Parts: sequence; C-alpha cells; structure tokens
Amino acid sequence: MNLEEYYSLFSEELLCSCVPFWLDHGIDRKYGGILNCLDREGNVYSDDKSVWMQGRAGWMFSYIYNHIEKKEEYLKLAKSCIDFATNYCIDTDGRMFFTVTKDGKPLRKRRYWFSEIFYIMANAEYYIASGDRLYLENAKKYFNFVYGMYIDPASDPYKITPKSYDTTRKMKTLANPMVLLNAAAVLRDADTENYEQYTEQITKLIEDIKKFYKPEWKATFENITENDEVLLASAPCRVINPGHNIECSWFLLEEGLRRGDEAIISLARNIFDNAFAFGWDTEYGGIIYFKDILGKPVEAYEHDMKLWWPQNEAAIASLMLFKATGDSRYYNIFEKVTGYAFAHFSDREYGEWFGYLRRDGKVTEPPCKGHTYKGPFHTMRMLAKCMKIMESELDI
Amino acid sequence: MNLEEYYSLFSEELLCSCVPFWLDHGIDRKYGGILNCLDREGNVYSDDKSVWMQGRAGWMFSYIYNHIEKKEEYLKLAKSCIDFATNYCIDTDGRMFFTVTKDGKPLRKRRYWFSEIFYIMANAEYYIASGDRLYLENAKKYFNFVYGMYIDPASDPYKITPKSYDTTRKMKTLANPMVLLNAAAVLRDADTENYEQYTEQITKLIEDIKKFYKPEWKATFENITENDEVLLASAPCRVINPGHNIECSWFLLEEGLRRGDEAIISLARNIFDNAFAFGWDTEYGGIIYFKDILGKPVEAYEHDMKLWWPQNEAAIASLMLFKATGDSRYYNIFEKVTGYAFAHFSDREYGEWFGYLRRDGKVTEPPCKGHTYKGPFHTMRMLAKCMKIMESELDI
Repeated sequence: MNLEEYYSLFSEELLCSCVPFWLDHGIDRKYGGILNCLDREGNVYSDDKSVWMQGRAGWMFSYIYNHIEKKEEYLKLAKSCIDFATNYCIDTDGRMFFTVTKDGKPLRKRRYWFSEIFYIMANAEYYIASGDRLYLENAKKYFNFVYGMYIDPASDPYKITPKSYDTTRKMKTLANPMVLLNAAAVLRDADTENYEQYTEQITKLIEDIKKFYKPEWKATFENITENDEVLLASAPCRVINPGHNIECSWFLLEEGLRRGDEAIISLARNIFDNAFAFGWDTEYGGIIYFKDILGKPVEAYEHDMKLWWPQNEAAIASLMLFKATGDSRYYNIFEKVTGYAFAHFSDREYGEWFGYLRRDGKVTEPPCKGHTYKGPFHTMRMLAKCMKIMESELDI
Repeated sequence: MNLEEYYSLFSEELLCSCVPFWLDHGIDRKYGGILNCLDREGNVYSDDKSVWMQGRAGWMFSYIYNHIEKKEEYLKLAKSCIDFATNYCIDTDGRMFFTVTKDGKPLRKRRYWFSEIFYIMANAEYYIASGDRLYLENAKKYFNFVYGMYIDPASDPYKITPKSYDTTRKMKTLANPMVLLNAAAVLRDADTENYEQYTEQITKLIEDIKKFYKPEWKATFENITENDEVLLASAPCRVINPGHNIECSWFLLEEGLRRGDEAIISLARNIFDNAFAFGWDTEYGGIIYFKDILGKPVEAYEHDMKLWWPQNEAAIASLMLFKATGDSRYYNIFEKVTGYAFAHFSDREYGEWFGYLRRDGKVTEPPCKGHTYKGPFHTMRMLAKCMKIMESELDI
C-alpha cells in the first residue's frame, strides 16, 4: 500500500473506529472521567477507574483536538478526565493514586509516579488546546515534583515500604527516564517560555537512557545496576521488552529530528533495529512480549503472547525512521507490522483493537478492549502520530 | 487405564522423571538449599532463590521419604532446604523473605506469610522423618506466629505499607484460610500431643473457607467482602481460579475423610464439581487459569493459558473423590485430566513437567521447568498423593 492509502486507513480507524468506541462507551456521565474496563462490544465490565487512564485519555483527546480534528466533544472529555483526576485522584501528600472507585474513592496507590506522568501530559496538552493557564500550572507543578523525585528519590513524600533490598542489589529502570522524557517533550510545547530548561532536562534524560543500550549485546535492557552494568546471573535482569525498547526509540527519534542531532537519531535507530530484530516473531508474525537476552526462559506467564501496544509502537517507530532516513527497509517493516496488527488486533465488527493475542495470533477469550492498562491511548496515539508523519510526507 | 497401570505410570513419573530432575540439577552444593530456576534440560538459568521453594522442597522430599521411599538423599536435600531457610531467609522481625540471592542475601520480602506456611510444612514433615525435635519446635513456633497474624493482622511485626485502602473496600482472600488449613493438617501429624488444638483450628478455618463458596453462583470466589459478599461490580472480585478451588476441595476432602464428616465431604465435592465444570476447557482440554464468573474479560494477560498446577490439583481431587464416593464420574474425570496432563505437560525427553502451555496446549517458548513459583512441589505432590490413594485402593 502507498502512503495515501495508509492515510485513509489510519484516519478511518482512528475517527470511525477507536474514537467513537470510547466516546460511545467510555464516558462516565455521572461521576466524570473515563471508564476503562470495556469488553469487546463496549460494555463496562468493571467500574473501578485507572488513574493512568484519566491522564492518558486527557492527553489523547486533547492531542487529537490539537492535531487532527477540532471537535468540542474531544475537549470536553479531556477536561472531564483531567478534572476527575485533580478532584479525586490526588492524595494528601500530593502523590496520585493508581486506581479509584467510579466515584473517586482510593483503591490503590503505588510507588511508581506514572499516574503523575500521564497527568502532566494531559494538563500540558489540554492547556495548548484550551489556553486555560490553570492546566499549564498543574502540568508544571507536577513535572517539577516528579523530576525532583527522579533526581532525588528521597524527596518522594510517599514513604512506602521499599519493594526490594537496595543493600543487596540496587537497580535502575529504563521506564523512569523514558516516560519523563516523553512528559518533558509534551510540556515543552506548552510551556514555551521555559523551552531551554526542558531541553536541558531532556538532554540529561537521554544520557541516562543511553546507559541501558548495550551495543555489545545488541540490546536495550529494562534494568541495569547502579553502576550501569547488566546483571546476567539474575533472570529478571536479563529480560528484554522489545515493545518498550521500540517505544523508547521513537521518543528519542522525535527529539533527534527536532534538534537535527545525528547522534540521537543514530541511537534511536540502533535501539529500534536491535529490538525489532530480536522481538519480531518470524514464525507467526507480531512482536513478542518478553524475551531473555540469552534465549533462556522468561518467568512471566504471558512472555510469548502478542499484546496490542508493542505493535503500535513499532508502527510509529518504523514510519518515523522511514521519514528520517528514507530507507525503504523501514517502510517494509511498517508494512509488515501494520499488516499483522490490522489483520489480528483491529475489530471491524465492534470497533477498537483487541488487547491480547496468544502467540499464534488468536484472540484470548473472552476478548477485551479496555482495562487498567489499555484504554484510549496506544492504538489511538499510533494512528494519530502516523497520520501526522504521513501528512508531512504527503504535504497534506 | 486401570489403577494398577496408573500406579506404574505415576510411580515411574515421580521416581524416574521428577525426583531425579531436581536431585541432578536443583541442589545447591555450595550454599545449600535448592535452585528453583531450571530450564527444560535442567540448566540453572537464574540463581536467585525462592523462599517458598525452600519450604516446598523441604516438605516434598520429607514427604516422599516418609510415604514413598526411604532414601537418605531425600532427607539430606530436605534438611539442606530447611536449614538454608532458617539461616538466611528470616528477617530480624521474624518474618521471612520472599526471594534471596544464592548465598542468602535478601532480595524481596512480601506482605503475605506464604514463605512461612511452606516453612512450617517442611519443618513438620522433616520432624516426622528425622525425629529431630528442633524442627518440630520451629514448625510450632511459626504456626503459632502465622495463625496469630491470621486471627489478628495487627500482630504482624512487618509494618509494610498497606496494598489497598481498607476504608474504601475491605476484602478477604480464600488463600489465607486455605494454606493455613493445609499447614495445620501437616503439623497435626507431627505434633500429635496437640492434636485437639489443631483440629479445633482446622474447624474454624473450614468455617471461614465455607464463606467463599456461593452455591447461588455455583462457584467459590477468591475474594469476598468483609461481610462475606461477592462484589460483582469490580472485575478483580469476580475472578474464579478453578485450579485454586480444586486444590481447596481436596484439602477439605482429606479432612472430611479423616473425620468421617459428611458435611465437609459434601462441601468439598460441591466446590470441586463447580470448579471443574466451570474451568475445564471443552475446546482444547485442560483447566483454564482464570475465568470471570459472568463470562466477562479477565485482565490478567495469561487468563486463558494452561498452567501445570491446576491440572495437578484436579488429578488429586478427582481420584480422592472417586475413592470417597465410588462414583465412576470422578474416575472418568481423573482419566480425562491425567490424559491431558501427561500428553501435554510431561517431558519424556528431559524429565519433569513444562510450566505453561498456551490455551491450545502448545508449550510456550522457551519452555521452563522451574521458577519462583514452580519447583519440586505441585507435580510431585500430585504423583505422590495419587500413589498413596491408589495404594489404599489396591491394598499395596
């Protein structure tokens, strides 16, 4: 297929399948925010709310408003999600909850500050859409808070019992600098007065991310020691998450292209090339969830399944790399990934994408469209981001 | 197949496949205890140690010594696992760790007292084998400690940050009374002087377990509210774990048979009948991991996979029910479960059983034989327990 054809396909999938699915089924008209647990047909099968998803939906619908289609209902939903999070999902210490009941009572709070990351992105993108400075201030406040915890974990007011013994084994995780990089990049577009500050912070985050990429292993690790070493003797430290690597590669690539920085572009390309080669299932197609760098067993039961989001990240990354390099190899990868994903994940009958497939590509039963970790985010972001790349290539 | 044939098959599988696999590959000759992460061929792919598995192996090899075959090497391994746990896996507050390094440095400690449960069982069974009262004292001390925490959670010296907000939603979990019942029953056989005390405690635990069985739903729930209600609006509260239900059924059945208590036998039978009918995969065979009571999606990615242990529990429960009731329906179920499990999980080439299959019965790649939750336990317990039942039926 050529880019014009892909553009029609992606635009229809975004605006006629995914967006209406969430608008029709996900809006909580009573308590505000979004209901994230939707079954194949869109029925709500659980009304507990994911706090991540309030932020993700707030960002996603603001982004679509800003970049794809200016419909008031997108802004209204985004605002409802952000306001629900502001009103009900923040604890007295300023840290956010992980899940709450439909009416906003806390169910769970976790050590990780990912609820906060999506809240920052939502507030920043919504500010761009609405011009309401209250949201910009929210985003800035939370970014400074989270960046502070990243630099100095002791500044975290949530004194949760540590998960593991740092005295035995102190590890760093790729997810932290990666999500902060993404949040900083979104906020920089909103808080243009402080462009330089965010750019400097992003530079530091990229330096931190680089430590996880090990050319000698042709791999990017999820966890390394505090001395930046790979801990080969422990299985959890050997796990490669190709989808996560690939998501990281396009976060970097976006920044590299923005700066015209060949070193960052090259880092992004290496991370992608390694992750795709390692993660693509040559037998059944699709990107495998987890693999061990030495080819040994992975403990997570779902290790050889196909989840929706790694395929989404691979579509964005390969198309962005094609745009960046002009190398037709990346277009071929884009076609391969997209072909697999549309054939197996896209639900032409009820809209949106299935969440998980067994390794052979069959949907697990009963199928689901949303849960604590899946909502109006990865697939819609992929469709929207790819549309923007296609527009720039096609001069739309 | 008839019982004589099954007896040969099970005996060979236990003593020529599973036991040698762990004796040949799992013993840590340097630091003591057992290495639980073994790949298909038996290679150690990670040397972090599961504390559960030290207790489970300690119990299992003592049980085989006591009930199947009196080999010194079984006792030696059991003692090594228990002593490793005693020396390295107990924190200063008396609570046990969850994982440690090969040389016994703490990696993780969890809120649940399941490390302690397996430690109790190991010490009690090893005391029966060795007569060394030190182990009986260990078992009694830890049983009193854990039973105390069960009755009054505030007595837990580990003041870990609560996982969820009890003020919003206070739930009880089936696993707690269930594992305590099992530990009490094992300890009662060792600490015969206090037979009545354990029997009374078991009576209370059975009363507690009964609350999770809901005849109106034909199901046994993993989680109920503090008022013993099913919380239908929340997906995690609707999840049924058929393998866990079935394990619970034979814990109850063993006690019912021991007491000649028809009410307990009937409860066990109902729990089994419901769980097997709900959990058996009529399309591919095998017991499915998780199902939603309303047939809605289950969030856990692995929900429709086949894990080794539910099949193990179903073999024990169905054979024990056949013995208890004489109903050939249970023999047919035993044949069905055993036929599926031996065809799909048993590895005739390298010994032991695979850990996980995709729903269609294919082993996930790369396969594994042991990890944090899988070791010399469920499969070997099933083979040994079934052999004991067969012996009593066959007058061996």
